Amino acid sequence: MPLQKRIILRPIGYVRTQAIGEEVKDRTRTSQIVIESEFAGGVEGIEGFSHIFVLFWLSQVSGHDKRSLKVHPRGREDMPYLGVFATRTRLRPNPIGLTLVELLEAKGNVLVVRGLDAFDGTPVLDLKPFDFWDMAEDARMPEWWTKLNREKSR
Amino acid sequence: MPLQKRIILRPIGYVRTQAIGEEVKDRTRTSQIVIESEFAGGVEGIEGFSHIFVLFWLSQVSGHDKRSLKVHPRGREDMPYLGVFATRTRLRPNPIGLTLVELLEAKGNVLVVRGLDAFDGTPVLDLKPFDFWDMAEDARMPEWWTKLNREKSR
Repeated sequence: MPLQKRIILRPIGYVRTQAIGEEVKDRTRTSQIVIESEFAGGVEGIEGFSHIFVLFWLSQVSGHDKRSLKVHPRGREDMPYLGVFATRTRLRPNPIGLTLVELLEAKGNVLVVRGLDAFDGTPVLDLKPFDFWDMAEDARMPEWWTKLNREKSR
Repeated sequence: MPLQKRIILRPIGYVRTQAIGEEVKDRTRTSQIVIESEFAGGVEGIEGFSHIFVLFWLSQVSGHDKRSLKVHPRGREDMPYLGVFATRTRLRPNPIGLTLVELLEAKGNVLVVRGLDAFDGTPVLDLKPFDFWDMAEDARMPEWWTKLNREKSR
């Protein structure tokens, strides 16, 4: 089957945050999503949901060999060497970020959210309301994930 | 802040399914995700996760006025008229689909998954392992969503 070769997207808005560097990983922080005026009508009714997925462009990735398809999770050599699609690394063929955030407020074209791990100015590609079809309560993760997550929680 | 105007993606693979038309919405069906050979190394280790997110290109959308930013959920006029970002409609400025699927098997460059509501030949943009940070157990959905979902479950 012939593959479509190139797909072109436009940002629908961008992230506004005061977090710098590692601070963006702090899930308790709030950020704003500023929707471009031409797309502002698209958020009407979004406040009915407590949580949304944010799809964003990991535009701050640079200096990376884009042909590499393997990483150690969080760059740690004591972790297995894995395909990028087995991790949430930014170093992906199509560097789209996906984060579930809490929607605190929707006011005109500005959404206030908690837990968005994106830098100031990050282009936003899409927003999707979170619902119960997005959950898997019986989900299983590999041992390396559980180990990293346990360390993070400390 | 100046917005990046155009973002260019390449498919990393495509969907293979025998489901036709409405059959793709049947979450009990299995599909295959065939990864392009140049990206095949990227799935190594993905089988450690029981569930993954599939990001795909809703390329079958056509004949739609792309400037419209409002829809009735599932086209039903008894439902509120909402911004597209408050729904999971395919009619979005950047028509990226996002579905959580069960990963049944990973064999070379072919993944077998359950629950992918995408047509045969759909370009796949990214795969992300599902973990507990993607869940919100206390999530709230609006009344229209609950009503539609109740009808679907019957």
